[in-house]
Amino acid sequence: MISYSRVIEGAYFSPTTPTSVTYQSHQLICIDNHGYIDRLVTSDDPDFDQIRQSADKANKLLSLSDTQFVLPGFIDLHIHAPQWPNAGLALDRPLNEWLDTYTFPLEAKYQDTDFAKLVYSDLVDELLRNGTTTALYFGTIHNAANLALAQACVEHGQRGFIGKVAMDNPEQTPAYYRDASAQVAIEQTEQFIHQIADLNKTATVKQTAVITPRFVPSCTPATLKGLGQLAKQYDLPVQSHASESDWEDGFALSHYHMRDAEVLDQYGLLTDKAVMAHGTLLNEDDYDLFNRRQTAIAHCPISNVYFGNAVLPVNSVLAHHVKIGLGTDISGGYSPSLYQNIRQAVMSSRQLTDGVDHALSPVHRGVADSSISVKTAFYLATAGGAASLHLKTGQITPGYLADLQIVSLPTPIPPDSADNIFEKLMYQTTKQTIDQVFVQGIRVR
Amino acid sequence: MISYSRVIEGAYFSPTTPTSVTYQSHQLICIDNHGYIDRLVTSDDPDFDQIRQSADKANKLLSLSDTQFVLPGFIDLHIHAPQWPNAGLALDRPLNEWLDTYTFPLEAKYQDTDFAKLVYSDLVDELLRNGTTTALYFGTIHNAANLALAQACVEHGQRGFIGKVAMDNPEQTPAYYRDASAQVAIEQTEQFIHQIADLNKTATVKQTAVITPRFVPSCTPATLKGLGQLAKQYDLPVQSHASESDWEDGFALSHYHMRDAEVLDQYGLLTDKAVMAHGTLLNEDDYDLFNRRQTAIAHCPISNVYFGNAVLPVNSVLAHHVKIGLGTDISGGYSPSLYQNIRQAVMSSRQLTDGVDHALSPVHRGVADSSISVKTAFYLATAGGAASLHLKTGQITPGYLADLQIVSLPTPIPPDSADNIFEKLMYQTTKQTIDQVFVQGIRVR
Ligand SMILES: [Zn+2]
Ligand SMILES: [Zn+2]
Repeated sequence: MISYSRVIEGAYFSPTTPTSVTYQSHQLICIDNHGYIDRLVTSDDPDFDQIRQSADKANKLLSLSDTQFVLPGFIDLHIHAPQWPNAGLALDRPLNEWLDTYTFPLEAKYQDTDFAKLVYSDLVDELLRNGTTTALYFGTIHNAANLALAQACVEHGQRGFIGKVAMDNPEQTPAYYRDASAQVAIEQTEQFIHQIADLNKTATVKQTAVITPRFVPSCTPATLKGLGQLAKQYDLPVQSHASESDWEDGFALSHYHMRDAEVLDQYGLLTDKAVMAHGTLLNEDDYDLFNRRQTAIAHCPISNVYFGNAVLPVNSVLAHHVKIGLGTDISGGYSPSLYQNIRQAVMSSRQLTDGVDHALSPVHRGVADSSISVKTAFYLATAGGAASLHLKTGQITPGYLADLQIVSLPTPIPPDSADNIFEKLMYQTTKQTIDQVFVQGIRVR
Repeated sequence: MISYSRVIEGAYFSPTTPTSVTYQSHQLICIDNHGYIDRLVTSDDPDFDQIRQSADKANKLLSLSDTQFVLPGFIDLHIHAPQWPNAGLALDRPLNEWLDTYTFPLEAKYQDTDFAKLVYSDLVDELLRNGTTTALYFGTIHNAANLALAQACVEHGQRGFIGKVAMDNPEQTPAYYRDASAQVAIEQTEQFIHQIADLNKTATVKQTAVITPRFVPSCTPATLKGLGQLAKQYDLPVQSHASESDWEDGFALSHYHMRDAEVLDQYGLLTDKAVMAHGTLLNEDDYDLFNRRQTAIAHCPISNVYFGNAVLPVNSVLAHHVKIGLGTDISGGYSPSLYQNIRQAVMSSRQLTDGVDHALSPVHRGVADSSISVKTAFYLATAGGAASLHLKTGQITPGYLADLQIVSLPTPIPPDSADNIFEKLMYQTTKQTIDQVFVQGIRVR
C-alpha cells in the first residue's frame, strides 16, 4: 500500500455535469506525494480501515467533523490583480470612462514594484482565503510587477496564470500608461514568458505566462497579430475581453467592420487555450465561432451588472457547447469571492428569466428558460474553469489535482438533505467559514 | 459640563438626504445617559479638549484609528425570524410553492419554544454582528415563540419590532399551521401586545408589538378587519406584504376585484405606521395611495430577485414621496446582512436601467434613469427605515439614538477621498470588519 502525503476523511461535493453535483458522505480522499488525488475510498471498501489507520499513525489523517465538507478549490477565470485597491470604487461610470478616470491611473502605479508587492501579496492571500486555488490574472504592462505577482503566487502557494498586459493603441490608451509600440508590447510579452520559465525552476506550484492583449480597442493590429503568433509559437493560453459592453461591441463594428470576436479570431487569438471575459453582447454566430475554436468564456456576473449592459445567457452558451467558467473581474466586480459570483450568476439568470420592468406583462418581461441553478454556477467555478485552462482540477476524482477547500456550515440548525446542505454552503459560505485550503495537496490556509 | 456615558472620537458618515451623505473626519460623538447623541463636537470647537480629556479620565473615551469609521446602525425593515434556518434554501421555487413546501412546515415547528429560543438567539446575535441595530420581524402564529424572540432582542440588546403572524384563511394556509379562526387570530394578536408591554417593564431596550396580517391571501376579511381595528385602538405599527409577485398581485384582483393595496387600505391597514414588504408590482396609483396614507415600503432587493418577478423602481417610489427602507427578507433573501442588500439594491437598479436581454437594442433594453447610488441605498438602510418606523435613529445627529456601528476598512491601500472610503465601506464591509455595535449607547458587540 502506497504512503500518502495526506488522507482527508469526510463528506464531499464535486461537480459531475453542468447541472449535477455528486455527494459522498464518508470517504477517504487519498493524496499522493505529487499532490494528486490517488484514490477515493468508501467506508465499505475492504481497504478503508487499513488506509485510515496507517494515515492516522503517520499523522497524515485529517478527519472532518459532521458540519465540515470538502469542495474542489475554485478557479477565478478573470481577475485584474492591479485593480484590487479599487475594488468597490467608481462602479457608477460607463466602461470607457471608468478605464480612463480610475483604472489606468491605478495600473500605471505598478511601475513601482514595491507597491506591486504590497498589493499582490495581499490579493493572493485574500483569494486563497476565499477558496480560490487557481486564478487567471491580468497584470499590468510592467514585467517587474507581473513577476512580483507570480512570486506572490509561488510564495502563497496559488496556481497563477498571469498575463503581461499588452496595450499600445495611442487612440485608446493614455500616454502615461501604454506600450511604446507594437514591438515593445510583443518583446515584453516574450520576456515575461522567459521570466516565468525561470521562476518555475524553483517553484513548487507552477505558474503560467498568458498572452494578454487587453482588448481590441487598446491594441494596434500589429500587436494583435504579433501576440497571436506568440500564442502559437509558445503554445500558451490567451486571455482578453470580448463584446463586454455595447461600447466595446460597437468599437469593433465601427473600426474593423467586423464582430469583436471575428477581429480576435483573424489574429489567431481565439484558440482552444483562450479565455475571453464577459461576452455579454456576443451573439449566436459568435457562440458558434467560440465553439469551433474551443475558446472559453469567463462569465463575471457581478462585473456585468455594472459594465456588461446585459446578462450573459449562460444556458445559451452551454447549449452551444462553448466552454465557460466563472470570474470575479476585480475591480469591475467588487468581490474577490467566487461564492459571491456563484450567487450573482444564479441571481442574474433569474433576472433574465423574469425580466426587470414591472410595467411589462409577465409574458413580455423576461426571457424564458434562462435560469441556472447553484449547481450550474458551482460547475462554472470548478470544472468549467478547469476545462477552460486544460487543468486536471476542479473535481474530486482520482487523477485530479488535490486543489481543495474545507468549508463549515454556519448555522445552528443543519439542513436535512445533501441538496439542502449544498445550497446552504453555496449561499452562506464566507472566507470565515472556509477552514482550510489545499493547492496540489499542500495546505496553504 | 454634563457627564457622558461614552464619547466616541473619530470620523463618521451619516445620511442627510436620499441622495447625499455627510462626512466628518474628526469629531467627538457625545452620548448621554439615556443612550442619545447629545452633542457632536468638532476639533476646532473650544470645548473639544476639555470634553475629550474628561471622558478619557473617566475611561469613557473611545478613540478610533485612522481606518475606523462610525456609521448609524442599520434598520432591517422586513425579516421573517423563524425562516432563519432556511436561509439559502429552495430559492428556485415560485412564491406559493416555496411557502407550502418549505416555509410553512418550518414555521410550524415554532410550537416548540425551545427550538424557537435556539434559532432566535442565534439570529439576533447574527444581525447585531452585521450592524443591524433595529429589526422589524415577522414571528409565527405562536405567542410563546414570539415572546422568545422579543426576549432574545432584550437579552442581546437589539431594538425589535415583532409581529405575531395572523393567518386564518383555510384556502391558503395548511391545516397544521393556521389560526383556528379570525377570533383566535385577533385575540392572540391582542395577547401578544400585552405580553410585550409586560416584557418592557424590565427591558432596557424596548420592544414593540406589530400588527401582522401575513398577507391578503392568507387572511380572511374578518381577520384583516379586526387587525385594522387593533392597529387603531393600540396605535401600533402594521406590517404585511403588498404586490410582491404576479401571483400575489393577481390574487387580490381575482378574489377582491381590487388592487392588493386597496384591499389592505379598506381594512385600515395602510397607516402612517405601516410597512409593506416588496411592492415590486405596485403601480403608480398604488404609490399615490401609499403617499396619501404615509405608508412605507420595505425594499428587499435580494429576495425580489427570487420572488418579486420584477425590480422595484426605487427612484419612482422616492419621486412619489413614499417612505422606503431596506429589508433582508430572510429567507426569501438568503443574506442576514443589510450591506449585501445595499449592494443588491444598487445592482438591481442598474439591471433595471440597462435591461437584461442582449438581443434587444440598448434603447429598448432597460428603463432609463432607474439607477440608484450606494448613497441612496445607505439612506434606505438607515434614515429611510427610521422614518418608516417613526424612530429617531439612523442618523448621527444630536437628539438621535446612539445606534451605531464602527467599521474598519479592509484593504492595505486606503482610498484617497471620503467618497471613495464610503463606497469601499459599502461594498467591502462584512461582519468581520464590523468592530463594535452600539444600541442606544450600549455596546452590544
Ligand atoms: Zn476584465
Ligand atoms: Zn416577507
